[in-house]
Amino acid sequence: MSDGASTRGLDPPEGAAVAAGLVPVRFEPSLAAVSVPPGTTLLDAATTVGVEIDAPCGAQGRCGRCKVKVVGDGVRRRPNVHLPPAAVAEGYVLACETVVQGPVTVEVPPPRERRHRPRGHAVAEPEELPVHCDWRSNPAVRVVDVEVDPPSLADNTNDFDRLRRALARQHGIEDVRAELPLLRRLGKDLRMSSWKVGVALEMRDWVYGTYLPPRLIRIYPSAFGQRSLGLAVDLGTTSVVAYLVDFTTARVIDTASAYNRQVACGEDVISRIVYARREGGLRRLQALAVETVNDLLDELERRNGLELYEIHEVTIAGNTTMIHLLLGLDPRYLREEPYIPTIGQAPKLLAGELGLRVNALARVHAMPSVGSYVGGDITSGVISSGMYATDKLTVFVDIGTNGEMVLGTRDWMVACACSAGPAFEGGGVRCGMRATAGAIEDVWIDSQTLEPSYRTVDDAEPAGVCGSGLIDLVAELFVTGILDKSGRLVRDRSRRVRSGPRGPEYVLAWGSESADGRDIAVDEVDIDNLLRAKAAVYAGIAVLCRSVGVELADVEQFLIGGAFGEYVDIEKAIRIGLLPDLPVERYRFLGNTSALGAYTALLCVNMRQDVLDVAEKMTYLELSADNTFMDEYTSALFLPHTHIERFPSVAAALDGEGAR
Amino acid sequence: MSDGASTRGLDPPEGAAVAAGLVPVRFEPSLAAVSVPPGTTLLDAATTVGVEIDAPCGAQGRCGRCKVKVVGDGVRRRPNVHLPPAAVAEGYVLACETVVQGPVTVEVPPPRERRHRPRGHAVAEPEELPVHCDWRSNPAVRVVDVEVDPPSLADNTNDFDRLRRALARQHGIEDVRAELPLLRRLGKDLRMSSWKVGVALEMRDWVYGTYLPPRLIRIYPSAFGQRSLGLAVDLGTTSVVAYLVDFTTARVIDTASAYNRQVACGEDVISRIVYARREGGLRRLQALAVETVNDLLDELERRNGLELYEIHEVTIAGNTTMIHLLLGLDPRYLREEPYIPTIGQAPKLLAGELGLRVNALARVHAMPSVGSYVGGDITSGVISSGMYATDKLTVFVDIGTNGEMVLGTRDWMVACACSAGPAFEGGGVRCGMRATAGAIEDVWIDSQTLEPSYRTVDDAEPAGVCGSGLIDLVAELFVTGILDKSGRLVRDRSRRVRSGPRGPEYVLAWGSESADGRDIAVDEVDIDNLLRAKAAVYAGIAVLCRSVGVELADVEQFLIGGAFGEYVDIEKAIRIGLLPDLPVERYRFLGNTSALGAYTALLCVNMRQDVLDVAEKMTYLELSADNTFMDEYTSALFLPHTHIERFPSVAAALDGEGAR
Repeated sequence: MSDGASTRGLDPPEGAAVAAGLVPVRFEPSLAAVSVPPGTTLLDAATTVGVEIDAPCGAQGRCGRCKVKVVGDGVRRRPNVHLPPAAVAEGYVLACETVVQGPVTVEVPPPRERRHRPRGHAVAEPEELPVHCDWRSNPAVRVVDVEVDPPSLADNTNDFDRLRRALARQHGIEDVRAELPLLRRLGKDLRMSSWKVGVALEMRDWVYGTYLPPRLIRIYPSAFGQRSLGLAVDLGTTSVVAYLVDFTTARVIDTASAYNRQVACGEDVISRIVYARREGGLRRLQALAVETVNDLLDELERRNGLELYEIHEVTIAGNTTMIHLLLGLDPRYLREEPYIPTIGQAPKLLAGELGLRVNALARVHAMPSVGSYVGGDITSGVISSGMYATDKLTVFVDIGTNGEMVLGTRDWMVACACSAGPAFEGGGVRCGMRATAGAIEDVWIDSQTLEPSYRTVDDAEPAGVCGSGLIDLVAELFVTGILDKSGRLVRDRSRRVRSGPRGPEYVLAWGSESADGRDIAVDEVDIDNLLRAKAAVYAGIAVLCRSVGVELADVEQFLIGGAFGEYVDIEKAIRIGLLPDLPVERYRFLGNTSALGAYTALLCVNMRQDVLDVAEKMTYLELSADNTFMDEYTSALFLPHTHIERFPSVAAALDGEGAR
Repeated sequence: MSDGASTRGLDPPEGAAVAAGLVPVRFEPSLAAVSVPPGTTLLDAATTVGVEIDAPCGAQGRCGRCKVKVVGDGVRRRPNVHLPPAAVAEGYVLACETVVQGPVTVEVPPPRERRHRPRGHAVAEPEELPVHCDWRSNPAVRVVDVEVDPPSLADNTNDFDRLRRALARQHGIEDVRAELPLLRRLGKDLRMSSWKVGVALEMRDWVYGTYLPPRLIRIYPSAFGQRSLGLAVDLGTTSVVAYLVDFTTARVIDTASAYNRQVACGEDVISRIVYARREGGLRRLQALAVETVNDLLDELERRNGLELYEIHEVTIAGNTTMIHLLLGLDPRYLREEPYIPTIGQAPKLLAGELGLRVNALARVHAMPSVGSYVGGDITSGVISSGMYATDKLTVFVDIGTNGEMVLGTRDWMVACACSAGPAFEGGGVRCGMRATAGAIEDVWIDSQTLEPSYRTVDDAEPAGVCGSGLIDLVAELFVTGILDKSGRLVRDRSRRVRSGPRGPEYVLAWGSESADGRDIAVDEVDIDNLLRAKAAVYAGIAVLCRSVGVELADVEQFLIGGAFGEYVDIEKAIRIGLLPDLPVERYRFLGNTSALGAYTALLCVNMRQDVLDVAEKMTYLELSADNTFMDEYTSALFLPHTHIERFPSVAAALDGEGAR
């Protein structure tokens, strides 16, 4: 089961029943059909014909999500812990490790949870986004009308030089360049428009430090009334968000978001890197990233009545793995010690080369990364948070499956990343779920009655607990003395603590209240997952401070980016020791700083240089190479921390509650 | 017959016999088959399935070359002057104007003359080519070994920046950039080679005047023993020549040449421009240009045991139409007054974008053009001839179907072009032929006996007269008094002057000597064609001189490029008034100056800037807009010229011969 996923499809066929040649495989309910060599996995066969089967673990047979039902005996069945006897009896197999031996029909269950849009990524008032730059006087993209002298026998300069001459004379725009696709239509465009055209120009671009002169993106009959749009994308591992921006007003006209379609190939970056090693895996991941953005473009196009070629420039912020996959760069070495990316700054790219359905000549800027686990989403965050320009000692964090932290000021920055595991996103927890309808997201426990109350997303019947709900719950359990500092449930404090299948558990909602009639309970294993996650984040911040010799208490502002931050209660996060015990007013939630940074860089040419400077300036600290990290981590596994003196406000609260 | 070729395929089907839907067409002897809508021309149907049928006139029904034989009555037959009754009776039609109406079988005759390689393009000692530049100290492409520090947890810079750092430290090569295809393999390449690699770098490049830092072309395990090759191409309308160059020695390792495969779509630039307007015509012309070069690459690969990805850079010189077609630029406006090209300088291009089978990351430089009829072949010639660097008053000419002339010094240049017609290449002349085996290329007439002797290409039995042979013949006829100054044959001077179908003709070879047993004769119509061609060239040169106020006699050197020049007898060319009456020692034949210029620019980075300066400096004089040209042309229609005083050496010779 641990053998490489990429070779499993090549197992030699066994048994006399295997026919020579190809074997037909049919999928229901889509009715897609394909013929494959015996030995092909069902997952690979499905991929071939575009049938989507979730395999979040990267087709390693570990997550059990790729269950499908096989009719007949055309496959070699294998036992797997995710296949209980009842499922086996019904004909279920795991698509990732079941190989085809003869003709077979496969029933594919509908994908789980995918119809929900990720929540919490649309900014409340996108039209009001602040832009700290001189975009009006130094625009990234300009649209101008230009009147070209018609040629004559006495003035027979070629079309392109003629247009350049007019741009220089009428607008002072010198040394304009163009690519072949535009030149291929130039002669006709100029003549059809009687030598009066509108042009869209990328005003400034560079190749690794060398500035390039302006570049033609588009020519149209007249600039009058023409829109000039841009797209800023946050390419997240789980969710992808796109802002549609009007270059003439700097406004975000609309936003759209969707799950990253790569989720079908693995839920986290590691399983996608594993998936990329399969035959054609990298190509598929790249295509899915592009398709995800293209789907958002379709949505924006529909809603806003625009033509996609009106989008003249694109900026993309993503973590290092996402950018590598988008560009088709081999992500393998991101995951192997010493964790080295291929690039920090992406080469010059046009949308047409990537397959993005905006104007094919639109430039695509990827925000630069610092290391394998401090990517363009973080440099983007440092820009949009204003951290890059502050004199205050600042911490910036972006917490999700991975936590990334940056410490510094405008003059210096150190950054690190830790794997927090899925607990903050409701994963790895028995009753955990994403922050979709029915997820318990806020919890309070009455200090007198010790009875809980909660609120769910969309006020639906409770179906599980999401990340912020779990933090709330653990904080409440702790201050009410139902949970001790080492994460053990105290049996006699509450009637809701009982013995569960994995040991003591706390029932947050009884079956009578819940969506599916079953109790929603959290046990010590679940709590342990959260403690390890919060310990990793806290330890990372502590190590950053220690590495440069500053005290945590000296941090003047603590900026939190990412969707996660928007829903977390700061005081409760401090109570569990996830965030350091700073005055609450030093904390600021910034929303989707990755998307905001992409938006800022889209509008502001200087900011594109600034973000490169940020990436250059930032020192990446590899925690696995730091010998103080393990000590910090171990100390942080307690509630709120082994050294309670680091959390005076929590100590006071505990005294107040009289707990412990 | 003059209706647009591009619409002919869309004629509505006529008659009740036309079946609904598609109609099968089969070609013999290839057995290729295709089903097309009724109304499709046979030529279009053939193109669809890759059956090559010559249509040198651009499918306008004018040349009669696309004759094919149709079995059955599945086509609509049309009369055409190129279809004598006997041919019609046998079933011949012109493929370009015959539309399919029902199922049909088509016999395609073998292509004419195509097996011959063009002659006269290989330079005698290519290994000895002079290069006037500092290619050793300032190479276009460098190959170096570099030892990259392996990464560690403490030194986790990304792969690309790591390689850049090593190149800067070990070789002083700063700010190196790279494209995506190379970056996609970089991680693996570095690790497989244990961090010691060889790299090929383009050392300097620019985008419209902005210099770019060095660019990685290729990475290999070690530079040791690796070849670094370049390709210089002369993309002629008729012939294409490629020089394979070793960047480490500057030597031309091998050359190859072939007919331009576009010849099947039209013999001259005008008919190709016409062809480009057909549906898919431009795409096909572009593909044929690329395929022609790829064929030469195959040949060079076979003969030299090289891998084509070892070719790291390409320069291409061609006339403006050829470069437009190669790049897929619409050539339409080159031909419509006022004759405006889309570009002078081509944008930055990689071989992979064009489909050339050299290293996909090799840069392709097209030599810049000045106007629609003064192209990169001429700027290339000005560079390779040294004209761009001389203080001497110089004329440079390149004569073929079109004649291009440049007058000037290093400080200024004027250029013009004239259509000479096909006479210099053996076309438009009844017994004319290309300079292939059996073509009469030298002629002498004994001043006593007035009997001619001649020499043929490859000393084969005479089959016709090529361009240089015709010039010789006319010069000899004129000085021996058999031809008068207005181009009329003098009936009683020679027994070889007789009445032919188009009037008086001169028999150069009797049927008893010739390859096909028929007399080889030249008549006044043929001679007239030559006189018009030579008048155009001479008048062009004269107008250039007049335009800048210099006398023809002041020209200090007269440089002749192109294959044509290599075989022309200067004295005889002066005698007919094709070339001005300068001392013979001022003339120099330079061979294929277009290919030589491409070769020079390939090796020498500075020369690439020089050729842009040349293109910039050169003033293009449009002869059709010059009101002195017609006068000059008319005066030059005589032998040698209306004003005999301009040709004192010819006047003296005539006196000596006692002629006239």
